[in-house]
Amino acid sequence: MTNTFTITARDTQSRARSGIVHTAHGDALTPMFMPVGTRATVKSLTPHELQDMRAGIILGNTYHLYLQPGHELIARRGGLHRFMGWDGPILTDSGGFQVFSLVYGGIADEIKGRRPQYPGRQQEMVQVTEDAVIFKSYIDGSRHVFTPERSIEVQHGLGADIILCFDELPPFRAGHEYTAQSMDRSHRWAERCLIAQRNRDPQVLPNPDQRLFGIVHGGVFPELRKASAEFIGNLGFDGLCIGGSLGGDKPQMYEVVDMTVPHLPDGLARHLLGVGDVDDLLEGVARGIDMFDCVSPTRLGRHGAVIVRDRERRWRLNIENAAYREDDGPLQEGCPCYTCRHYSRAYIHYLYRVKELLGIRLVSLHNVAFLINLMADVRAAITAGAFAALYEEWLGKPLPQ
Amino acid sequence: MTNTFTITARDTQSRARSGIVHTAHGDALTPMFMPVGTRATVKSLTPHELQDMRAGIILGNTYHLYLQPGHELIARRGGLHRFMGWDGPILTDSGGFQVFSLVYGGIADEIKGRRPQYPGRQQEMVQVTEDAVIFKSYIDGSRHVFTPERSIEVQHGLGADIILCFDELPPFRAGHEYTAQSMDRSHRWAERCLIAQRNRDPQVLPNPDQRLFGIVHGGVFPELRKASAEFIGNLGFDGLCIGGSLGGDKPQMYEVVDMTVPHLPDGLARHLLGVGDVDDLLEGVARGIDMFDCVSPTRLGRHGAVIVRDRERRWRLNIENAAYREDDGPLQEGCPCYTCRHYSRAYIHYLYRVKELLGIRLVSLHNVAFLINLMADVRAAITAGAFAALYEEWLGKPLPQ
Repeated sequence: MTNTFTITARDTQSRARSGIVHTAHGDALTPMFMPVGTRATVKSLTPHELQDMRAGIILGNTYHLYLQPGHELIARRGGLHRFMGWDGPILTDSGGFQVFSLVYGGIADEIKGRRPQYPGRQQEMVQVTEDAVIFKSYIDGSRHVFTPERSIEVQHGLGADIILCFDELPPFRAGHEYTAQSMDRSHRWAERCLIAQRNRDPQVLPNPDQRLFGIVHGGVFPELRKASAEFIGNLGFDGLCIGGSLGGDKPQMYEVVDMTVPHLPDGLARHLLGVGDVDDLLEGVARGIDMFDCVSPTRLGRHGAVIVRDRERRWRLNIENAAYREDDGPLQEGCPCYTCRHYSRAYIHYLYRVKELLGIRLVSLHNVAFLINLMADVRAAITAGAFAALYEEWLGKPLPQ
Repeated sequence: MTNTFTITARDTQSRARSGIVHTAHGDALTPMFMPVGTRATVKSLTPHELQDMRAGIILGNTYHLYLQPGHELIARRGGLHRFMGWDGPILTDSGGFQVFSLVYGGIADEIKGRRPQYPGRQQEMVQVTEDAVIFKSYIDGSRHVFTPERSIEVQHGLGADIILCFDELPPFRAGHEYTAQSMDRSHRWAERCLIAQRNRDPQVLPNPDQRLFGIVHGGVFPELRKASAEFIGNLGFDGLCIGGSLGGDKPQMYEVVDMTVPHLPDGLARHLLGVGDVDDLLEGVARGIDMFDCVSPTRLGRHGAVIVRDRERRWRLNIENAAYREDDGPLQEGCPCYTCRHYSRAYIHYLYRVKELLGIRLVSLHNVAFLINLMADVRAAITAGAFAALYEEWLGKPLPQ
């Protein structure tokens, strides 16, 4: 088994580095943004469109795929790659995040101060024991049990190239005590996941060469993050994620990354889970993050929000705004994506106004391509020793010291 | 100005012929099926996908484009071709059909015996005078007036390569008297459209070389169809459509075609308006029709109905059916379309079950490509003197004598 990660260049003024993630379905360059294909599709786009925009790894959600159509059905079809027609690298999460976030509200809710989706229904929807998480399907209310072993088994059936440890997502704004207990449990689950991974029979799996990434917890507490980084970092995983609560706002999220990364082994790839705003990508890279994923580009696309290079407007514009009714320019001047090469803001504005599906397609494509192209620029800048300049050009401020 | 239509081959056992429609945006081969892009988009597909499947002409709906975003806005953008990014031929209808069909119910409703959409609201929604049709917008209830001259002016602004006469669609199951009166009025309107077309100033229009097709009326009455075919056929149009009531079922529709075509001038292209079922295309070609259009491939696509080569099942299957849950075959064995080359029934079944937009895209693409490919096969058969064999192979019966 070859290394999972090779570092190819380092920035001298920050923790930024560029590298290569090696997988059974090819190499992918870091830093990278991974589009999310929750239900075996990056919403509204084809695998060929993702290939054309040079997407590296795409992410599938184990929780959704387990419930429908089921990992066994996908395994019988030859695995997720063949099922969805994408033969590049795939990463699946463990299902843990979704099981909990449907109840507590996700990190995004936490960051944005939104309430959980089902307050008070926590007990009804999810129970956590030392051994397992018992949850009800959001589809039909049926009862399901996930253990670390079961999550790994499901991910073996899906056959992604990178799979993640099963972990507990602590409740919204958990205190120190619960966060510490939850971290310890996630650590015990991490060990169980590693054992399940080592005991697999590669002969019967759609993808015999899967790599397992661990997840660092510890919430917003520096000593917990340090402890978790050191524990998970030395357990023998093929790569590492920073998960759990990332705090209540963006500055706190950057603090969490800062208190974690220095304690991680240098040679493993680092994935900051569920983060994908333009500023978060640049801030994350500066702090030593290699991999990012987020549903935002396609979610924004469904609501007509276009990612643009405009810091003042928090990197987006609403294409339904009347200002674009007769705007013959592309969504983003200079953007090389398919949408910007061929269609005007006026046309896309019209498609949204009359609720034509093509509008969602075109904006989703642009949004995903925008973040993928941004990361290609970031990689080129790191290699050229120009990351500080790129950071300042985009964010209007110098690199943090 | 060159000829609009050249006949290149004729079948010896039927009225089928193949030919070329010449337009300012290129030639298109007949017999052809034209995908409908009501609102400047063939629903869910890009112009490049239509190009890849070798679509000839696509059709836009003047009524919808006039109401939103408006023909003047489209003209300021350089016309419909540039606005939507399709530089192949475009045909627009006159708006008449939609104005009336929203009230009376369309030909499809008539054929299928469905009730009109707004029974009793006819007076409220549409008024017809000798000069004009006054109607309310389905969007905001605003009042609009269409005259033959106004329809042509709107179509000049849109800039399609082929535009249609403004006509009246007689009410559902109109009798002989009303049909005759309505036909006479549509004839007078046809003359006004021709005058408006001749008086245009090509210098100020997005597309200076537009061709105007007339529409033959007369309902289900042979002597009216004959009179209309002879009147409209000799008025100097660049091509001809068969419109108005086509009867209450498919056999009656074929009768209407049979009572009309022999009275049309041989040298003009013939477009049977709004018809696109597999059997209707073959029956129409056999009766001398050159052009067809229908929303059905994309409308069926939105409901998971896949067009397949299966006469017994009336040319379609429902991909949401549990039978396809683990079916690794393509939508249609042997189909060369993008969808069938890359995706399984099982995957597309799943996409529909979880309501992913990509499902609609993939089935819409297949459905449109299926009809376009069928027509390519029809053209090849006519050229090779094998149309009778192809007709029998698809419909399981010999050509009608």
